[in-house]
Amino acid sequence: MRGYTLEQADYTRRLARIEGQVRGLARMIEADEYCIDVLTQIASVTKALQRVGLGLLDAHLRHCVMDAHDEGQGDEKLDEAVAAVERLLRV
Amino acid sequence: MRGYTLEQADYTRRLARIEGQVRGLARMIEADEYCIDVLTQIASVTKALQRVGLGLLDAHLRHCVMDAHDEGQGDEKLDEAVAAVERLLRV
Amino acid sequence: MRGYTLEQADYTRRLARIEGQVRGLARMIEADEYCIDVLTQIASVTKALQRVGLGLLDAHLRHCVMDAHDEGQGDEKLDEAVAAVERLLRV
Amino acid sequence: MRGYTLEQADYTRRLARIEGQVRGLARMIEADEYCIDVLTQIASVTKALQRVGLGLLDAHLRHCVMDAHDEGQGDEKLDEAVAAVERLLRV
Repeated sequence: MRGYTLEQADYTRRLARIEGQVRGLARMIEADEYCIDVLTQIASVTKALQRVGLGLLDAHLRHCVMDAHDEGQGDEKLDEAVAAVERLLRV
Repeated sequence: MRGYTLEQADYTRRLARIEGQVRGLARMIEADEYCIDVLTQIASVTKALQRVGLGLLDAHLRHCVMDAHDEGQGDEKLDEAVAAVERLLRV
Repeated sequence: MRGYTLEQADYTRRLARIEGQVRGLARMIEADEYCIDVLTQIASVTKALQRVGLGLLDAHLRHCVMDAHDEGQGDEKLDEAVAAVERLLRV
Repeated sequence: MRGYTLEQADYTRRLARIEGQVRGLARMIEADEYCIDVLTQIASVTKALQRVGLGLLDAHLRHCVMDAHDEGQGDEKLDEAVAAVERLLRV
């Protein structure tokens, strides 16, 4: 396992944590907590999600794209992967 | 209610939806769904979160910051609000 | 002068620096420099631009928006300012 | 030439245009133009820069990383490429 790639259990654990954070955001807003604190928490959840995304991108490039390349089908897979990066960047 | 500001019920509804999407992400990964589809979903959840953040920022500027300004305390509140925007931008 | 607000001379100096960095990017690509180094430089120029943007947002909120608020016209100015933040976030 | 990859002449032309836009930003600020208009222009320059970045990433994955993979050195190159994406995302 290399780079940003995560184990299956890491994804599960991280996403469970993010889900809890989102539930926490709802509670903060219902309790009328200070907006700036909620915004700080939103920035933190966004980062956590993006890191899961980087992990998936890393695994995807390392496995699907490379395997496709070895079978002479790498170009289509790369088109798709770079388009996914573009969506993450929201360019 | 103006601009990006949301009603309390909108925040609750949106965050419940985001929580469901995060749970869906975990299911997609467990079911070994195609990485690119998971990444597309991550981009979509991130956007939904940022929109909640914009709603909170809008309400915060329109109420807390303006009220503080009217009492001669606007500068501190603005420092804080722009710092929150910086965190959202991850500059 | 408070928060993220910059002096006129700071904007001029920072933008001159960014302009030089963009020219440097073109040179790097013409000289066929290593892509990863060019990407690192692009991330750095992007950050520098976003900081200029934060400076302008800070000044705009602190002056135009507050002045408009004092004259009972704050809401329109805030709509506009939050829409500008949205464009910076590329939500 | 596929996907987001650009020709050398495209990079040169795009970066020359971005350089002109940055010079335009300095002029707008010196002429005291409306902050919101300057912010809109900053969002546009940022997008243009990110697109150049996507083009370079695309070319890098398609050439350097694939060539390295064919020689059994793909993993190091992928570590580096995903770290570059992370910097672009500013996670």
